[in-house]
Amino acid sequence: AALKRTSLKIGMIPADGIGKEVLPAAQRVIEALGSAIPKPEFIPLAAGWEEFNKNGKALPDETVRVLKEECDAAMFGSVSSPSHKVPGYSSPIVALRKHLDLYANVRPVQSVSGTPGPDVNMVIVRENTECLYVKREEIKELPDGSKIAIAERQITSKASERIAKLAFELALRRGAERAAPGAPETFWKGPPQVTIVHKSNVLAVTDGLFRESARKVYEENKGRYSGVKVNEQLVDSFVYRAFREPEIFDVCVAPNLYGDIISVGEPVHGSAPDIEGKNIANPIASIRSAALLLSHLGYPEAANRINVAVDDVIRSGVATPDLGGKNSTTEVTEAILKRL
Amino acid sequence: AALKRTSLKIGMIPADGIGKEVLPAAQRVIEALGSAIPKPEFIPLAAGWEEFNKNGKALPDETVRVLKEECDAAMFGSVSSPSHKVPGYSSPIVALRKHLDLYANVRPVQSVSGTPGPDVNMVIVRENTECLYVKREEIKELPDGSKIAIAERQITSKASERIAKLAFELALRRGAERAAPGAPETFWKGPPQVTIVHKSNVLAVTDGLFRESARKVYEENKGRYSGVKVNEQLVDSFVYRAFREPEIFDVCVAPNLYGDIISVGEPVHGSAPDIEGKNIANPIASIRSAALLLSHLGYPEAANRINVAVDDVIRSGVATPDLGGKNSTTEVTEAILKRL
Ligand SMILES: CC(C)[C@H](C(=O)O)[C@@H](O)C(=O)O
Ligand SMILES: CC(C)[C@H](C(=O)O)[C@@H](O)C(=O)O
Repeated sequence: AALKRTSLKIGMIPADGIGKEVLPAAQRVIEALGSAIPKPEFIPLAAGWEEFNKNGKALPDETVRVLKEECDAAMFGSVSSPSHKVPGYSSPIVALRKHLDLYANVRPVQSVSGTPGPDVNMVIVRENTECLYVKREEIKELPDGSKIAIAERQITSKASERIAKLAFELALRRGAERAAPGAPETFWKGPPQVTIVHKSNVLAVTDGLFRESARKVYEENKGRYSGVKVNEQLVDSFVYRAFREPEIFDVCVAPNLYGDIISVGEPVHGSAPDIEGKNIANPIASIRSAALLLSHLGYPEAANRINVAVDDVIRSGVATPDLGGKNSTTEVTEAILKRL
Repeated sequence: AALKRTSLKIGMIPADGIGKEVLPAAQRVIEALGSAIPKPEFIPLAAGWEEFNKNGKALPDETVRVLKEECDAAMFGSVSSPSHKVPGYSSPIVALRKHLDLYANVRPVQSVSGTPGPDVNMVIVRENTECLYVKREEIKELPDGSKIAIAERQITSKASERIAKLAFELALRRGAERAAPGAPETFWKGPPQVTIVHKSNVLAVTDGLFRESARKVYEENKGRYSGVKVNEQLVDSFVYRAFREPEIFDVCVAPNLYGDIISVGEPVHGSAPDIEGKNIANPIASIRSAALLLSHLGYPEAANRINVAVDDVIRSGVATPDLGGKNSTTEVTEAILKRL
């Protein structure tokens, strides 16, 4: 299917803050790929906190419609949250995930060889439709005037099996890519591995179901996944070990909220109002997201070209201030374009 | 009250795994303090996974009774969790917290000057009675054979205000200790600061209530807390910043589960079955917990003596394998005893 595509329609949702600076950088990189991919067409779409303040909706219906009916894929910049509860406002990201059933939030955390720091090459696979994100919350006042609030956390076998399947398939695919002749060396040396992240020592029922569902996917496809090592990690010790020895993880699959908290490498970042408009936001996460997008659509070579260029630029020392450099968003983007 | 105490009864619950090795180390240190504290009496108490397997109860009634009626304080070693759901078993730690209304889980994360690594001096104040730890979970089978599990997350204004109050008081106390003449230099240089950790951009109601309650405690005691800086951090970015710049945090207050996940320095550790019985478990967390216990009971000087001795030993390079050393649990303990 990918090979027959004649055009590539990509919805672009810069949303708030530095999203408006880094998303155009990613667009420039995709445009520079030339004939490696079908001619891309970018469709600007509105969403976010600023949009809510202008037009009263954080996620306009038209944005959802265009994404559903016209786009092959989409890129999201970053979203600001109000610091207080604002009537009528709720996160457009969470709503988008719901509308488009974006059940898999795949977040690679990878270090670049030849740079300081630990050797990391893991992917967090975060279930993205349920858990506390179902947002079923209630509050009531008690007779003594104090308040009690309850939120529901939902875990289903279906959603858990679906995300586990994706994690196992991803582990296999990464394994195959590493084993391919001429594959670039990566930091992950062992066989494919899936780590199930949960807290079933406390949440025996809900996290118990998540864990069981993931194991079931493995057991029922033992032939296919025989080369994959399965293990598990309680979420609190996961964070500890991710600090101490991040190199022990390959693919890690987690329920929604744990997945949010543990994906601390943050391939996705916030809207960073403190540096907005200064042309110093790091565009690399967005540019690497473009690579992810292309790889997902069936253009792994194009994705590779982007990642190799980014790695090169990082090693060269051209960097925005967050990485200790002195360069602007534009300079980093152009350094990457030059190496494409 | 502390000054009039003539004895100090401390319940000792080694529980499972290396708990049985590190708790005796802490006991030796307390015993070595001599007249700095009332004569301690240690009461061994049963609990844990091994106890469950022997006598069918992870937390014997007698343990709870003795703790309630006879002890001034208690120390807990570490607990193993079964890797599968075992009928009748549930965590004795969570049950203990409930029985004794142990609402505050205070976890310092502190680096030792003169050692490599970032300069950290923060305390996680974890609410410890509610959130998902109320363990109200249900599961049912749907017509198509798939399963759905729901857990309730409870946040009340009472519990949130209670823990926030403790956090603000702790920030004040730490500030006063730092300002006292002759106080040892610490890494925290700014005014006292309380960071409220939450995720109210998604859980507007429950985390909204936690956040509001903490702010209310501050607003209603503005005179008393005028010197304390209040800020907040979404839990996912908290983890990210704790990786990148742990030095920006002083006291951090969080709902139960977030508090569990973010207290990654882990002054409290697991039962580590892989190294059990080898006399290589690091006893320092337990020994520092003894210091916390004594400080809480009103003996800050005794606590100080312990911490100064531990810092010295760490700087001297005497260390168990987890810190890159070659020493045994006993050797580290004795090095500390020598410096007391
Ligand atoms: C902005 C917020 C709703 C979102 C989330 O919690 O999922 C963000 O933290 C993320 O990780 O994408
Ligand atoms: C063992 C477990 C029940 C406990 C918790 O989740 O509170 C532990 O992780 C902790 O942090 O003390």
